[in-house]
Amino acid sequence: MLRKLSVATITMQLLKKGVRMASMNGVRPLNKPTKSIVGPAFTLRFIPGREDLSSPETLAQPDYAPRVAIEKVPKGAILVIDGRGQSNLAVLGDIIIERLKFRRIGGLVTDGGIRDLEECLRADFPIYACGPAAPASITGHAGGDTQCAIGCGGVAVIPNDIIVGDGDGVAVIPAHLASQVAKDGFEQENFETFAKLQIKKGAPLIGTYPPDKHTKTAYEQWVHAEKKD
Amino acid sequence: MLRKLSVATITMQLLKKGVRMASMNGVRPLNKPTKSIVGPAFTLRFIPGREDLSSPETLAQPDYAPRVAIEKVPKGAILVIDGRGQSNLAVLGDIIIERLKFRRIGGLVTDGGIRDLEECLRADFPIYACGPAAPASITGHAGGDTQCAIGCGGVAVIPNDIIVGDGDGVAVIPAHLASQVAKDGFEQENFETFAKLQIKKGAPLIGTYPPDKHTKTAYEQWVHAEKKD
Amino acid sequence: MLRKLSVATITMQLLKKGVRMASMNGVRPLNKPTKSIVGPAFTLRFIPGREDLSSPETLAQPDYAPRVAIEKVPKGAILVIDGRGQSNLAVLGDIIIERLKFRRIGGLVTDGGIRDLEECLRADFPIYACGPAAPASITGHAGGDTQCAIGCGGVAVIPNDIIVGDGDGVAVIPAHLASQVAKDGFEQENFETFAKLQIKKGAPLIGTYPPDKHTKTAYEQWVHAEKKD
Amino acid sequence: MLRKLSVATITMQLLKKGVRMASMNGVRPLNKPTKSIVGPAFTLRFIPGREDLSSPETLAQPDYAPRVAIEKVPKGAILVIDGRGQSNLAVLGDIIIERLKFRRIGGLVTDGGIRDLEECLRADFPIYACGPAAPASITGHAGGDTQCAIGCGGVAVIPNDIIVGDGDGVAVIPAHLASQVAKDGFEQENFETFAKLQIKKGAPLIGTYPPDKHTKTAYEQWVHAEKKD
Amino acid sequence: MLRKLSVATITMQLLKKGVRMASMNGVRPLNKPTKSIVGPAFTLRFIPGREDLSSPETLAQPDYAPRVAIEKVPKGAILVIDGRGQSNLAVLGDIIIERLKFRRIGGLVTDGGIRDLEECLRADFPIYACGPAAPASITGHAGGDTQCAIGCGGVAVIPNDIIVGDGDGVAVIPAHLASQVAKDGFEQENFETFAKLQIKKGAPLIGTYPPDKHTKTAYEQWVHAEKKD
Amino acid sequence: MLRKLSVATITMQLLKKGVRMASMNGVRPLNKPTKSIVGPAFTLRFIPGREDLSSPETLAQPDYAPRVAIEKVPKGAILVIDGRGQSNLAVLGDIIIERLKFRRIGGLVTDGGIRDLEECLRADFPIYACGPAAPASITGHAGGDTQCAIGCGGVAVIPNDIIVGDGDGVAVIPAHLASQVAKDGFEQENFETFAKLQIKKGAPLIGTYPPDKHTKTAYEQWVHAEKKD
Repeated sequence: MLRKLSVATITMQLLKKGVRMASMNGVRPLNKPTKSIVGPAFTLRFIPGREDLSSPETLAQPDYAPRVAIEKVPKGAILVIDGRGQSNLAVLGDIIIERLKFRRIGGLVTDGGIRDLEECLRADFPIYACGPAAPASITGHAGGDTQCAIGCGGVAVIPNDIIVGDGDGVAVIPAHLASQVAKDGFEQENFETFAKLQIKKGAPLIGTYPPDKHTKTAYEQWVHAEKKD
Repeated sequence: MLRKLSVATITMQLLKKGVRMASMNGVRPLNKPTKSIVGPAFTLRFIPGREDLSSPETLAQPDYAPRVAIEKVPKGAILVIDGRGQSNLAVLGDIIIERLKFRRIGGLVTDGGIRDLEECLRADFPIYACGPAAPASITGHAGGDTQCAIGCGGVAVIPNDIIVGDGDGVAVIPAHLASQVAKDGFEQENFETFAKLQIKKGAPLIGTYPPDKHTKTAYEQWVHAEKKD
Repeated sequence: MLRKLSVATITMQLLKKGVRMASMNGVRPLNKPTKSIVGPAFTLRFIPGREDLSSPETLAQPDYAPRVAIEKVPKGAILVIDGRGQSNLAVLGDIIIERLKFRRIGGLVTDGGIRDLEECLRADFPIYACGPAAPASITGHAGGDTQCAIGCGGVAVIPNDIIVGDGDGVAVIPAHLASQVAKDGFEQENFETFAKLQIKKGAPLIGTYPPDKHTKTAYEQWVHAEKKD
Repeated sequence: MLRKLSVATITMQLLKKGVRMASMNGVRPLNKPTKSIVGPAFTLRFIPGREDLSSPETLAQPDYAPRVAIEKVPKGAILVIDGRGQSNLAVLGDIIIERLKFRRIGGLVTDGGIRDLEECLRADFPIYACGPAAPASITGHAGGDTQCAIGCGGVAVIPNDIIVGDGDGVAVIPAHLASQVAKDGFEQENFETFAKLQIKKGAPLIGTYPPDKHTKTAYEQWVHAEKKD
Repeated sequence: MLRKLSVATITMQLLKKGVRMASMNGVRPLNKPTKSIVGPAFTLRFIPGREDLSSPETLAQPDYAPRVAIEKVPKGAILVIDGRGQSNLAVLGDIIIERLKFRRIGGLVTDGGIRDLEECLRADFPIYACGPAAPASITGHAGGDTQCAIGCGGVAVIPNDIIVGDGDGVAVIPAHLASQVAKDGFEQENFETFAKLQIKKGAPLIGTYPPDKHTKTAYEQWVHAEKKD
Repeated sequence: MLRKLSVATITMQLLKKGVRMASMNGVRPLNKPTKSIVGPAFTLRFIPGREDLSSPETLAQPDYAPRVAIEKVPKGAILVIDGRGQSNLAVLGDIIIERLKFRRIGGLVTDGGIRDLEECLRADFPIYACGPAAPASITGHAGGDTQCAIGCGGVAVIPNDIIVGDGDGVAVIPAHLASQVAKDGFEQENFETFAKLQIKKGAPLIGTYPPDKHTKTAYEQWVHAEKKD
């Protein structure tokens, strides 16, 4: 049910459940048109680069976390990469995007950059990131760990948290709140559909959104009528 | 007459009149293609959020400034919202945009974000902001005042200052300078039309733009000839 | 040969030759679709503005560096302007772009803004910058020098360094490394074409990219076969 | 009772009551040694400067808010000035500090700079700010309002909220929470005195702070013994 | 006469003469107590580093600008170094400070860091900078030019502009304005001495500072009386 | 031997060995006078906070990483805490400092803030951090892991890397380079002692530092003479 909800709705539901720190800063949909995503998080973390840790040879090490992660992230999961908020360093490029696509991953989210971006977008795979960046990750990052708690876009991501993305960006739903957010979010969006209809017809904002008693009654009648259809 | 002038021309005229602090930082046109705006400012101000001031219940208070402002901003005016330069917090979303449109407001300008952005753009209403942001205003803002002096994009906005926006962004014209800026700006753009013609034909930059005596004479002749047509 | 290489490839080759500080921050292609550029750098430098150095009269001084530069930058060269990373101040506008185009310059690169941006893009001339900005340079810059060592987007640019730009942004190749970067970059991209084919067919990342012995042998066979065609 | 509590304790008590957004960023005690402050907020707000609003003549206008505020802030209150987080612009200097001292104001808090700082400190009046800054406010600010809701150091300040400052910086207590924060904070600090004694004697952190059952019993005995003394 | 004026006074005089962009951001006195400076600027400029331009061998090149500058800056002049606002990179260290002291330079001003800072301060030579920074300049800078127009702390510095520094930081006086600033600044400080006396005695701010007619008359009498002494 | 070397020397030796990314940004000694530190790194990592992960109850969980780390960091080691560069959030306070002192830890390094700072400094334990910050870690952080690769002040820290701190800040020596850095650094400092003596006597910078042949010979003679003493 989450798949039908907007990120705006989800962040409001999280706020109502006491979670304000849920929306990533600076991470935006790069595909045009936007490709929405929903799925459990699989995490990868970079640390700051250092010349002895970040040489081209590093990439060929069999246990190099950023390459291992690409092969381990499960079908349908969202690969979330802590790119340290460095929009000018790529976390990966077009060859890896092809592999993620082949493996049927649900999408990529990072607070870093993407290299060969135009090629990547041709793969028609969902990418949420800070934008293009030519330098490879080893230019300024070193490999960290995979499937640990990370930060991305300034928010916490725990493996298996639910990641949602649309035109407004990316939010993280703590796993234990996902079903309740889905339920209440569906109800919220239903009301907003009704409220928007009233506003378009000329109803004033105050009293309509949020609703006063009169609007609540009218909404219930509308819901009732809708169900009949 | 201001409506025909570019924001680039207006900022140059303001500079010539001693005003350098006139162009908003980070505020850009979100509609594609750009929808130009000109109109008097109606202002709204947010302050930093605090949990006791920024709960969902706050939105339903009858005197909640951000909702009151939507109903009070006059037809044709530009609603300018001090979003504290927080691009990752929305100042409003699609339902409110529909209300602004219904009320025939001239446009929205903010140094904050917009939620449900794709829906908002479908309303075909002029929006200048920092981009999309899912979290509702109460996630990090609290309501301030309406129709007071504010800052937006790092520049002062006094109610009834003239707001102009185009593809280059948004500038603020102090109300008492508006007619002179319009007059001198029209003259500037007329000369620039002439200068661009010369440059396209191969005239060197130096002597043409800014003009030396020779170019000034040629311009006068061109103006004279244009008037005849 | 550089013309066929991506900026991503070039930054990797520079890294392999010990140069990590090569890619500009915040400088992006403004034309849609992207117009790739390659050419030697011709440099111009702004300094912070000051009211006595940055009046409109300054623009008419015959030795004003920013105007002199426009007339001196040679055909095919890339004009690189140190705009002090101020995305909210323009370094130039549409009339100057027309002059650069007339003089058959290879392109413009700056870590500042561009005014009259929509007009500039109509000229169909390659522009890499931080985006639109209405205020003229004299609003906050003063003129510096031309053809000196500068910084742009946080990287060093020495006159005659080779500037390359594409959808991923802009990189600077030290002049003495250009031919080796071109040669090795061509080899790198050839291998990546092969690797991407394998990945698309389902080859795992590890062993393929970077290649192990098996992949290296397969690549050599593929190169051999390609040459025959 | 608040006067005896540290800002660290107060922010913890606010967090326990659901308020995380309470501590100012970048605002620090400038007197050496630190002069602690507690008192109700009296607020003043600057907006971005503009040449027509920010001339030296402005300072002499009888209703210029920044001057009016100095004469209106009551004895014992804390003057809190929204300096727009501009550490490089002064909000006031030594002559005004002398007036605040004469009027027996409780202290000054701002997220801007202070001019003539060394002279100001000689007045032996409590100042919390971002540090020294030579330029007068009118260099980059314009006057706003007084006694309205403001932001300072990124947090909301409502007139009559309680402002507390010590070596760790400045926190804002919503007026309606002040007495409960005082009461619970006193209890917290009492326990921490006990816990620190145990830690100094070699007690492990875990079990002691936060306390387990054993530590809680020992604390109650200690409290009982203290009361007897 | 400038030597007796505070930087706060000087920036106010510059503002009155139309120059708002005069005070350096982030540059502060590092000696305790502050060592005031006044003198003509001698400039040095760094550009962003690049591994081929910034190796340890570079330092030994006979024409390496940063070393040449140390030997060329004249006795009494202020060495102003454009450290690109990088507080985490040193522009120089203790050995060079000793050389500047031996050569009787008037002081050092930079918007970069200083290495071996504690050793440097033992030399008892005036240093205005962003603070300590261990990495040598070549870690992230490359050498640029000497005695050219530069930016430092966000303001323009032209060789022979007058640099003044005190506890509030550093300001730049355009050479052609220096004598007028000195004259008017002396008058300003004289009035402020008077005004502060009145304020300390209990005069209200409004009417005293800025002065109304009554205060102006009283000031003239005070000046007259002072002269007699 | 490292204990006698300055951080400035160590960063130069690392640069000579190809490591430029070694010095922490924004991390400074808080004790006055500075307390130098050298020792192997023991690491702790925070992630961004989230209300469900960052409640006061979290602190009492027996496996809460930030508390476990305090009890596990070995005698003589340096506790390095990734505080996410958030200077306005504390990573710990005075009670924990007392425990670290009791356990004879070598020192604390973090790119976050410290609460109860004045109390902490009374413990006379070496602290390198961004400064005071009242809010407890749970206000904006959540607990991550211990003894993993982290970033601190923008540089990589691997457990058992050697951490050194003095008045210039903190550097990280990759464990495998430590003995060579110590050896070459000792030689460098010996030469610098000689060079500084020459500079103080009036030797010009060029030829002395870096040394030309003549200076090298004089240095060798000085070394020889020193050894005899």
